Amino acid sequence: MQKPHELYSSLAIRNDNKILVLVVDGLGGMSHKDYGYKTELEYANHPNLDRLASRGTTGMLTPVLPGVTPGSGPAHLGLFGLDPISFNIGRGVLEALGIGLAPAPTDVLARGNFCTIDHEGAIIDRRAGRIPTDVCKQRLALLRNIHLPQADIELHAVQDHRFVLRLKGTDLDGNIENTDPGVVGAKPKPARPLIPRAETTARIINAFVDQAMDRLKEQSAANALVLRGFSMMPNIPSFYELYRLRSAAFAIYPMYKGLARAVGMDVIDCGRTLSDQLQTLETHWDRYDYFFIHYKYTDSSGEDGDFLSKVSHIEALDSSIDVLVRLDRAVLAITGDHSTPAGIKSHSWHPVPLLLASPTCRRDGSTAFTETICARGALGNMESKYLMGLLLGHALRLEKFGA
Amino acid sequence: MQKPHELYSSLAIRNDNKILVLVVDGLGGMSHKDYGYKTELEYANHPNLDRLASRGTTGMLTPVLPGVTPGSGPAHLGLFGLDPISFNIGRGVLEALGIGLAPAPTDVLARGNFCTIDHEGAIIDRRAGRIPTDVCKQRLALLRNIHLPQADIELHAVQDHRFVLRLKGTDLDGNIENTDPGVVGAKPKPARPLIPRAETTARIINAFVDQAMDRLKEQSAANALVLRGFSMMPNIPSFYELYRLRSAAFAIYPMYKGLARAVGMDVIDCGRTLSDQLQTLETHWDRYDYFFIHYKYTDSSGEDGDFLSKVSHIEALDSSIDVLVRLDRAVLAITGDHSTPAGIKSHSWHPVPLLLASPTCRRDGSTAFTETICARGALGNMESKYLMGLLLGHALRLEKFGA
Repeated sequence: MQKPHELYSSLAIRNDNKILVLVVDGLGGMSHKDYGYKTELEYANHPNLDRLASRGTTGMLTPVLPGVTPGSGPAHLGLFGLDPISFNIGRGVLEALGIGLAPAPTDVLARGNFCTIDHEGAIIDRRAGRIPTDVCKQRLALLRNIHLPQADIELHAVQDHRFVLRLKGTDLDGNIENTDPGVVGAKPKPARPLIPRAETTARIINAFVDQAMDRLKEQSAANALVLRGFSMMPNIPSFYELYRLRSAAFAIYPMYKGLARAVGMDVIDCGRTLSDQLQTLETHWDRYDYFFIHYKYTDSSGEDGDFLSKVSHIEALDSSIDVLVRLDRAVLAITGDHSTPAGIKSHSWHPVPLLLASPTCRRDGSTAFTETICARGALGNMESKYLMGLLLGHALRLEKFGA
Repeated sequence: MQKPHELYSSLAIRNDNKILVLVVDGLGGMSHKDYGYKTELEYANHPNLDRLASRGTTGMLTPVLPGVTPGSGPAHLGLFGLDPISFNIGRGVLEALGIGLAPAPTDVLARGNFCTIDHEGAIIDRRAGRIPTDVCKQRLALLRNIHLPQADIELHAVQDHRFVLRLKGTDLDGNIENTDPGVVGAKPKPARPLIPRAETTARIINAFVDQAMDRLKEQSAANALVLRGFSMMPNIPSFYELYRLRSAAFAIYPMYKGLARAVGMDVIDCGRTLSDQLQTLETHWDRYDYFFIHYKYTDSSGEDGDFLSKVSHIEALDSSIDVLVRLDRAVLAITGDHSTPAGIKSHSWHPVPLLLASPTCRRDGSTAFTETICARGALGNMESKYLMGLLLGHALRLEKFGA
């Protein structure tokens, strides 16, 4: 059956109407018993968001399927109109995107951790004491020029003990088990192929690991490495191919820049605050049709379990969005990629509130931007992968389907 | 594409959080003109259900697809997370499950009825005067040792004039037309194959029926038989394989025990009333992760077209559920398998109200448990097959999807 993005793509046309999506990371919350069973968004004071809701329409997005908690990759692909189950982005690819690499679809990527092992080879510190990034780079330097007959290995420091391994070759396959046993006391495992086609790749990885371990063994700490999240870049069409949209991302954190790059957006340098991001956006207004703005702090404070901090980040956001209110001829969506309730301290499955405002929308009488209001909004509850179609529709950028 | 239960299954993990599902059979109703256009649930007084709704979240379940009225089999499979269109359970299999048989996937099952025919072979009583079960057993004894070269036949009394036929062999196929013409005045029909692959099976059935009719013909009543609902057991994975849940069913009626067994639940003896069921459940609390409780009487009174009786069964249920209120750290769902409006006197297609309460839910301001409130609840309207994911999510029993 045709996927939603294929139908949208077949109908997409160009015009001058702009689309602006503000992704408030981890926006959705959960009733919190210490705060009158309100969510963070219900507890916070956000008159500007409420005003936007009252001149728009609201609903709920289910990132993947009911009950399923998404990682950041699938959650964003959904918002970009791609079915997150078909276009799964692995951990290795996501890390690579996060440091600005542009993996080819033939590369195999993995997330690497330096760890510390004892004289018998058992892991005694899975993060090698979170060595500084500089030490990580020194260790990677030791691993330079490891020669493998059938592929090239690239290693890139990320932060602390973390790095990205990129294997370049022909006929590689990423279906390989983690070498990271995931627990202290166990030894790093060999890379095992999950399917026959990955046997050669697993052999290359193991040849690399053997030589690398040999070069690291003299160190007192960070004297070994483990790999996980072996994966390959899915073949993702670009936003322009798909939707005829010139698109730009205004994100601060590397991973979100990477996700935007993966769908062919231009990534714009935009400072350190939401105000910076929105001001930069204004200066790029004429050059693009679609603007992706990513706001991180609601997710971080949710992950920390800090209800009031998440509330204050929502309120800070609210006080910065007058630019959005000014750009009132655009199709504006404010939503999250997923929920991150402070009460759970992690991503969750709860649907995400969605606010859509545009001159073409059907106002639904929403009086505020909260989960409770959005759950009763006129857009209903839909999977995130339909949002792009809704935005294109409101921007009059989809031709009539059929005669 | 991957089905929801496959995705849920791939993410399922174990923990100590419990899931409890109270299935109120035929719960949903229809506006009734004699009762102020209220449904049975709207007319009934149920303060305990309302209190649970106010500390939870509500929504609607569509058992199969909008407008489709499900039988008990598909309706329950949906609640158990299985797409009822892919996993269709036929009448014969359902009857077999209902009397405690465990059909192999190679068996063909059918529901049999003793009937009374006149001297020309036309049916004059389709239920043979609802002969007592003892007489049914005597008739079945007459049919013992009918020899068929290519398969074994087993016959099991159910109740009154009803029995189950089980054909065991190799290479059998259940795509066979009913021999029951469904009307008085017609003769029983031969078993006809619906597809070429079922020709041999149909021949075996007809050979059995010929010999059986011969042995029954001297009786004055219950002197013939008809068969319907030829079917084979679909290959259903167990609850533990699927969801890593140790599961138990607290049902009184055989068919629901059978459905629970079909997905690998332990079926627990639990008395004759909902209070008995819930008390038995409490004594098994530590041994299981998932508890299925089935309440039948709302469906029976709906089928009888007795609005006020259905109301009183809802009120009786409400007064028995304080145990559920006490178990407040569990993920609790109260819903129906389908609707059975007294105004229609049968199962119907109307979506079924759903109440979900757990410490991890997002309270949505629902003030009562009625169709009208649930239709505006935050969970929205979803196909029943997504309920399992939602429950697993709220029990923190699904790993994050993707990085």
